[in-house]
Amino acid sequence: MASNLRIFSGSSHPDLAKAICSKLKIKLSELTISKFACGEIYAKPVESVRGDDVFIIQTGTGNVNEELIELFIILDSMKRSFARSIHVVIPYYPYARQDRVASPREPITAKLMAKLIEEAGADHVITMQIHSEQQQGFFGFPIDHLNARKLFAKYFQNKKIKDLVVVAPDAGAAKDADRLARLLGVTIAVMSKMRPGFNKAEITSLVGDVKGKNCIIFD
Amino acid sequence: MASNLRIFSGSSHPDLAKAICSKLKIKLSELTISKFACGEIYAKPVESVRGDDVFIIQTGTGNVNEELIELFIILDSMKRSFARSIHVVIPYYPYARQDRVASPREPITAKLMAKLIEEAGADHVITMQIHSEQQQGFFGFPIDHLNARKLFAKYFQNKKIKDLVVVAPDAGAAKDADRLARLLGVTIAVMSKMRPGFNKAEITSLVGDVKGKNCIIFD
Amino acid sequence: MASNLRIFSGSSHPDLAKAICSKLKIKLSELTISKFACGEIYAKPVESVRGDDVFIIQTGTGNVNEELIELFIILDSMKRSFARSIHVVIPYYPYARQDRVASPREPITAKLMAKLIEEAGADHVITMQIHSEQQQGFFGFPIDHLNARKLFAKYFQNKKIKDLVVVAPDAGAAKDADRLARLLGVTIAVMSKMRPGFNKAEITSLVGDVKGKNCIIFD
Amino acid sequence: MASNLRIFSGSSHPDLAKAICSKLKIKLSELTISKFACGEIYAKPVESVRGDDVFIIQTGTGNVNEELIELFIILDSMKRSFARSIHVVIPYYPYARQDRVASPREPITAKLMAKLIEEAGADHVITMQIHSEQQQGFFGFPIDHLNARKLFAKYFQNKKIKDLVVVAPDAGAAKDADRLARLLGVTIAVMSKMRPGFNKAEITSLVGDVKGKNCIIFD
Amino acid sequence: MASNLRIFSGSSHPDLAKAICSKLKIKLSELTISKFACGEIYAKPVESVRGDDVFIIQTGTGNVNEELIELFIILDSMKRSFARSIHVVIPYYPYARQDRVASPREPITAKLMAKLIEEAGADHVITMQIHSEQQQGFFGFPIDHLNARKLFAKYFQNKKIKDLVVVAPDAGAAKDADRLARLLGVTIAVMSKMRPGFNKAEITSLVGDVKGKNCIIFD
Amino acid sequence: MASNLRIFSGSSHPDLAKAICSKLKIKLSELTISKFACGEIYAKPVESVRGDDVFIIQTGTGNVNEELIELFIILDSMKRSFARSIHVVIPYYPYARQDRVASPREPITAKLMAKLIEEAGADHVITMQIHSEQQQGFFGFPIDHLNARKLFAKYFQNKKIKDLVVVAPDAGAAKDADRLARLLGVTIAVMSKMRPGFNKAEITSLVGDVKGKNCIIFD
Repeated sequence: MASNLRIFSGSSHPDLAKAICSKLKIKLSELTISKFACGEIYAKPVESVRGDDVFIIQTGTGNVNEELIELFIILDSMKRSFARSIHVVIPYYPYARQDRVASPREPITAKLMAKLIEEAGADHVITMQIHSEQQQGFFGFPIDHLNARKLFAKYFQNKKIKDLVVVAPDAGAAKDADRLARLLGVTIAVMSKMRPGFNKAEITSLVGDVKGKNCIIFD
Repeated sequence: MASNLRIFSGSSHPDLAKAICSKLKIKLSELTISKFACGEIYAKPVESVRGDDVFIIQTGTGNVNEELIELFIILDSMKRSFARSIHVVIPYYPYARQDRVASPREPITAKLMAKLIEEAGADHVITMQIHSEQQQGFFGFPIDHLNARKLFAKYFQNKKIKDLVVVAPDAGAAKDADRLARLLGVTIAVMSKMRPGFNKAEITSLVGDVKGKNCIIFD
Repeated sequence: MASNLRIFSGSSHPDLAKAICSKLKIKLSELTISKFACGEIYAKPVESVRGDDVFIIQTGTGNVNEELIELFIILDSMKRSFARSIHVVIPYYPYARQDRVASPREPITAKLMAKLIEEAGADHVITMQIHSEQQQGFFGFPIDHLNARKLFAKYFQNKKIKDLVVVAPDAGAAKDADRLARLLGVTIAVMSKMRPGFNKAEITSLVGDVKGKNCIIFD
Repeated sequence: MASNLRIFSGSSHPDLAKAICSKLKIKLSELTISKFACGEIYAKPVESVRGDDVFIIQTGTGNVNEELIELFIILDSMKRSFARSIHVVIPYYPYARQDRVASPREPITAKLMAKLIEEAGADHVITMQIHSEQQQGFFGFPIDHLNARKLFAKYFQNKKIKDLVVVAPDAGAAKDADRLARLLGVTIAVMSKMRPGFNKAEITSLVGDVKGKNCIIFD
Repeated sequence: MASNLRIFSGSSHPDLAKAICSKLKIKLSELTISKFACGEIYAKPVESVRGDDVFIIQTGTGNVNEELIELFIILDSMKRSFARSIHVVIPYYPYARQDRVASPREPITAKLMAKLIEEAGADHVITMQIHSEQQQGFFGFPIDHLNARKLFAKYFQNKKIKDLVVVAPDAGAAKDADRLARLLGVTIAVMSKMRPGFNKAEITSLVGDVKGKNCIIFD
Repeated sequence: MASNLRIFSGSSHPDLAKAICSKLKIKLSELTISKFACGEIYAKPVESVRGDDVFIIQTGTGNVNEELIELFIILDSMKRSFARSIHVVIPYYPYARQDRVASPREPITAKLMAKLIEEAGADHVITMQIHSEQQQGFFGFPIDHLNARKLFAKYFQNKKIKDLVVVAPDAGAAKDADRLARLLGVTIAVMSKMRPGFNKAEITSLVGDVKGKNCIIFD
């Protein structure tokens, strides 16, 4: 049985899907996505995917909850239609910052979503710049985790900016800032952030030398 | 270890939760639910639920997709906080009408949601008037499925309306109409419905005697 | 590794298996099936199935419980013999009518059998005219559900019978009757059935016009 | 929630169930078991088992396949009726002799049945004198495996028979024969068995001294 | 059924187990642990644990691989002996630093061990100061993650040391250093670490002010 | 996607791996295996295995616990690196003698290890001369179980030794001794073994004729 590679786009970022298809010189496969008056989403592939290797492109930057439910439903439709393998390309992984029990009784929503994506039918996830690298272990199957650090480094090197320093906006970002700084051959500075309330942040101190320097704030 | 029964309310129907607590003479337990600027939901119980039997009341009649994601997150927070058992009271079960592959390649979203509710942490679901009774089998655990038919029958009997007929708006509803009709000791009529397009319906015929009668349309 | 398609027949309907093989111009593969004096069934493929795509044809119309146990054992023998994929062709799905909790404490045996078929080793089921379409959702894997309605419609159209009406023998069958009626361009009538005792049925009323008409009773 | 211990009897050995209940001074709980004309089994508990600890007594000595399917269905009915724990008392474990791949492509039916009993809803199994002790490891949950060897030893000791020898009817039974012989303080003899055809056996040799002795053949 | 709380000690840290039991005024339960000549470990509880809540104290600071295998075997013995719940107290979680795919094709051993501990029979893990907090999400069940930061802060406050600075030995430790620094009301400094070869580390730079200060290196 | 067959060697028996590769005329694939100062093992394939069929050769005859943990880690690295299928060749299956609950509260470690090998990522196991054939059923997936009996029989036949007898060193070995004896056309003798203490054995009796014969002790 010859297998086809098919790319489908969820409704979150159709332009990205088109750009990928154009780069790969592949036709974007058609997906019916609609919404009932009650808000329930309906989705299914327009043509047969039996035996196909299916890639679904869906990110989490718009209405993130709608986008997740839509993704689960697309996954179910692909699985029930006998796709051979189902891959999710999810550039911005939603809920990635809720990746640990920071205060008592919190959920670990990033792990929860990994599990639900898997249960809904995915075999493989491709994502990038995920908030903490440990989240690779939230998935039961292997994931491809891409990193844009080298692209950023190249960009700044081409700019030939002098007196650069890479600034971590909080201590948790120090590790990533340090990696970028090494690629650029410069040093880092680290801010200390406090959260006085929900959805609020305040910088309380800064270590490292930033005076008169060109700062790259890297989070 | 003494176990407490605790009732929590999702954001979909707080009044129902209050009414249930008032009826049971139990204090509604407090749940922090908030939303980040990016749309991501955050939820956790305010007090310890360690060893408790937890009931979560959440229905699917408003913004159904937000309500589902919120439910999944509440379930994860309860499970990670060592609740002893987790029960979901979900009067209107969302996506219940997408319960079969009606045309090729459709998902079975009602089954998918049953699976995701289970994977997110629920041990038990209480629901009512679910679109098709077979959906009880979509759950891996037992469910309590309540039916309001007897309440409806009593209501109409008290009204002492004459020349009643129970009308099924489509053939799929004939079975339920028949059950209500028996309780009332009357006959049924059955309409035939066609869907000329997505989200549209058209009645094409009617069998049974409705002329000059008082009709209860029962779906 | 080249993979072979192989068809095996359980002991429930060898003639069907032969007819299918004859249609497909494939040799029926041999299966040893025997019974010990104590009633225990023994089954295994006669030749290697390593890497093969295996189809097992078994229906549930004779001694249904023996047939199910035999199916489970055949599935285990195929799985332990390294078949690449295992497909069950089960024209009459057994226990399909026990598909919901109709009165308190009933099992959902149709769901149970779906689960046991899956656990015993099946990857895929092909069935037809299943008692309720929701049962597609009882399986964790996708199923192919065939419907003979169009064949029936064609048969009756060729007969050119006049004054046809499609009669549902109970309200639960109204939906299917309605679908056949649409294909034939005629109306339906619906009976109301009561079960006065176990394994008994009684027709209590009929809506729709059948007087002087040619009735197709469709269940 | 106070929990009740309840004992139910499958249809394979009601007298054993009654004897156990009489010994424990517990009333046998009632189970509806019936068969449809098509051979399908229907079973459910007559009273509520919600929160109860349920013991089901079913052995495999009559129509073993019917008895197994009946057991699976009883298990499903108990689980869906919210029993707190479900225990199967199965004195003669069916298919215990098919416990390994003795010739290529054989199923391991003893393992398969252990898995299906677990999937159907059992939490615990009590069995005895199982064909090979390794089968304890076929279950995902712990099992209680009872052995009557000491009862047998006591029985023969009370008889004060002289010149005893314990004879294993085939080499596979030598281990168990040896254990009984130690308890009795006597020696063993071992036969060698060949299977010239399906369901047939032939003794080809015997080692050990049986001449003029009283033999206990122990299998 | 009355349940007992029982504490068992693996062979990695018996003194800790004794100290815990002494604090809780509970007798340490006895565990047979021995080793066959071939190196295989044998372990089982000396007394019945049927229905008990069992705590196993085992850390990973000695011969870590022996300790893990021993833990898996103890877990299996408890589960097969019908313990009601099984809790692992594992102060130093082994393999915690292998928590992500740092270079291509690496395993995520910290996740793997979480999964194996769960599969071997644990219901709950208590650990502390785990290398990255995200590892809480590696477990399918909830974990109690203890942190000694406040104890450390109190210790240093009592010492009343002047001119303190908390130093992170690499950028990844900056977050934890920052948290301790806040409790102490001081600032941090961050080193940058490079790994020139396997099992080797080199400090390449330092940001923040440490000159003439008392440094707490916090990893 | 063309798939490669790759063979990797754990650190337990590199010579065997080389001999197999030499026989198959395949290059042994390279695996990085190293140990941190704390005793933790690190392992990963040197080249990409994406889409490959991977065979891992690891036995359990040296430091068995280290070898098992190493195997689990290699399995995880292969799975997370997208190997298409993962096969374990494990000539001496560790813990095979702990295959049943011989005295109360014992673990079934042979089953436990089968489960952990599966959970760590294996799809298939090839082993030989396993202590009891029932252990085939400990695996959820099929295994290839090789037996060297025929090689042994041929070896002794070529030696043309007269007056042979096959001796089972305990009653549990009688079955295998009997099988070898049949191949050689000779009789067996059976010893009776007692275990007076842990890791000790004592022969208490012998049945069968060995006087003046050439004995093959076969365990």
